[in-house]
Amino acid sequence: MRVGDRHYRSLWVDASPGAVHIIDQTRLPHVFETRTLASADAIAEAILAMRVRGAPLIGVAAAFGLALAVARDPSDESIARAAEELRATRPTAVNLAWALGRMRERLAPIAPAGRAEAAWTEAQAIADEDVALNESIGRHGLAILEREYANRKRPVDILTHCNAGWIATVDWGTVTAPIFMAHERGIPVHVWVDETRPRNQGLLTAWELASAGVPHTLIVDNAGGHLMQRGQVDLVMVGADRVSRRGDVCNKIGTYLKALAAKANGVPFYAAVPTPTIDWGIEDAMAEIPIEERAEDEVRIVRGLDPEGRFAEVTIAAARTAVANPAFDVTPAELVTAIVTEKGVARALESELAGLRPRKAASKALT
Amino acid sequence: MRVGDRHYRSLWVDASPGAVHIIDQTRLPHVFETRTLASADAIAEAILAMRVRGAPLIGVAAAFGLALAVARDPSDESIARAAEELRATRPTAVNLAWALGRMRERLAPIAPAGRAEAAWTEAQAIADEDVALNESIGRHGLAILEREYANRKRPVDILTHCNAGWIATVDWGTVTAPIFMAHERGIPVHVWVDETRPRNQGLLTAWELASAGVPHTLIVDNAGGHLMQRGQVDLVMVGADRVSRRGDVCNKIGTYLKALAAKANGVPFYAAVPTPTIDWGIEDAMAEIPIEERAEDEVRIVRGLDPEGRFAEVTIAAARTAVANPAFDVTPAELVTAIVTEKGVARALESELAGLRPRKAASKALT
Repeated sequence: MRVGDRHYRSLWVDASPGAVHIIDQTRLPHVFETRTLASADAIAEAILAMRVRGAPLIGVAAAFGLALAVARDPSDESIARAAEELRATRPTAVNLAWALGRMRERLAPIAPAGRAEAAWTEAQAIADEDVALNESIGRHGLAILEREYANRKRPVDILTHCNAGWIATVDWGTVTAPIFMAHERGIPVHVWVDETRPRNQGLLTAWELASAGVPHTLIVDNAGGHLMQRGQVDLVMVGADRVSRRGDVCNKIGTYLKALAAKANGVPFYAAVPTPTIDWGIEDAMAEIPIEERAEDEVRIVRGLDPEGRFAEVTIAAARTAVANPAFDVTPAELVTAIVTEKGVARALESELAGLRPRKAASKALT
Repeated sequence: MRVGDRHYRSLWVDASPGAVHIIDQTRLPHVFETRTLASADAIAEAILAMRVRGAPLIGVAAAFGLALAVARDPSDESIARAAEELRATRPTAVNLAWALGRMRERLAPIAPAGRAEAAWTEAQAIADEDVALNESIGRHGLAILEREYANRKRPVDILTHCNAGWIATVDWGTVTAPIFMAHERGIPVHVWVDETRPRNQGLLTAWELASAGVPHTLIVDNAGGHLMQRGQVDLVMVGADRVSRRGDVCNKIGTYLKALAAKANGVPFYAAVPTPTIDWGIEDAMAEIPIEERAEDEVRIVRGLDPEGRFAEVTIAAARTAVANPAFDVTPAELVTAIVTEKGVARALESELAGLRPRKAASKALT
């Protein structure tokens, strides 16, 4: 999408292989800074530190990480080591394991000498497919927004949590794709943006919406229930790090609270995801998906700009204060209206979601 | 309660009338600083800026504010003007209107010359009664914690939102009184403390619990639902700014989301309040209680300590970002297990709460 007067993807490559460029998302929305990553280690660090983040983008970044490792050493051992290093960075999102699995399947039958080029090409294919997936999610989500607008004849109020925007993917975003498309087509929308503590990824969403000129209002995570009680939210749409085959949605911590409020107030709740985010090997997400516990300092330290406009941070709680920081929660399928994917919209029922399942997919593809 | 080696109330007076002393709560937990307020204007400013906060303490502070106005000018006009100035500071909590109403009823039949002394005495009585009320709430809440501990034979996990601690009252606190008492009696408790954006009053709760040596863990507001899903919360206990006569609880924004999660996970949800917080003139809190919309900068600016340990703030969202900041929400009575008061514990039913109603109370007392 556009940043200033240039079109960016959130991750891009030069004409010749050897490095990828990213937008350092830990500096956004305050500072727009790009980084060049030239090794699997550098990519693993960027994923761990959340310089690149968002389930789809993490998968793409990991694919390029593996390609960079293969360029250095195409042996089976090197591939296995790099895949494990990359896989271990974030335990919750399924896309990471999915992208690494696809890369390894592609490389396994190829002789080491041919692997570097094949790996780079495959990683680029995953990136390009991600763009196409999100554009397609956008078209299906757009139909929902068009219908809401046709029913209401006033701006559609959408609440979103965290950032499932274009920088969480390679381009377009899952939640933002339909919003950008609606805005371009003149369908009036307004987005309530949860700030999404502890890391405040909602600020990234606000930054993306502002860049595209989409009306939006930033709120604290506590406010959404109240807005729904007062009829100020027409629908909730979030991304997901993993969706179970029956439609449980594992997403950023706090999503579950919004889903409860949506259910209690008759507000439809959608998750917008590419189908690779659906983990066909998982039925009960509460029991089966590991929830990442992140560093305590994410809660204790808040980043922003100081009064002189310099990047700064403040400590809100002393190091002696005990902190818990679970990064994700699970919204049970019964609170989910539907899953919006590149293949269409399916209600959160195992029978409906099964229609989205690729024929060759089996749970072993994820191991 | 104790701060270091000294016992403090959150608001106190000298031997002779003329000023009140407060702990400046906008500086906590980072800096412990007291202020002396010698006029109704100064008290109104302190309430508005939340140097004093918490529904019970606001009522006491307003009573002293009126007493200071009367000391300067005991006329009916002066009293009416000061009462209006003080009342207008915060629209949601009922205690403010209740305390001002009580002061005016006390002063109305007295000749102007005798009003200053009577006003000061009455404000002190309201403060002393608040301490007694909270101690009594503590005893009734303690019985709940004792019962939970007897059932579980392991530490009782309590989740609380915002600060209903001793600094939100004159002493003891509503939610913290039973917790302090349980801790003193050797009943093991552990408190999950919601940070409570935007103003992070949970940090005040953490500071109070740390001072008293009560085990606690700070969490973001997004985390409580997940903890309840995982069985890590035995009960939720919050304060309230106003309770309707059928048991709707108006409290800090985000309380409603925790109540929804508690209901969905079979976790009891209590509000601990002195009976003056019950507004007998209100049946349907959603329809009848005005919700304060506070300044946008509360969301945009976060306070803490900089890396050198100095008081500092960072701006997380630019001034051009639209912000909404509703300060309270309403938890409908059907999500509330019971109201814990100084007179006992009543289920959130109009018929049970009626037993707590003072005989002489009528809705006109609040006008």
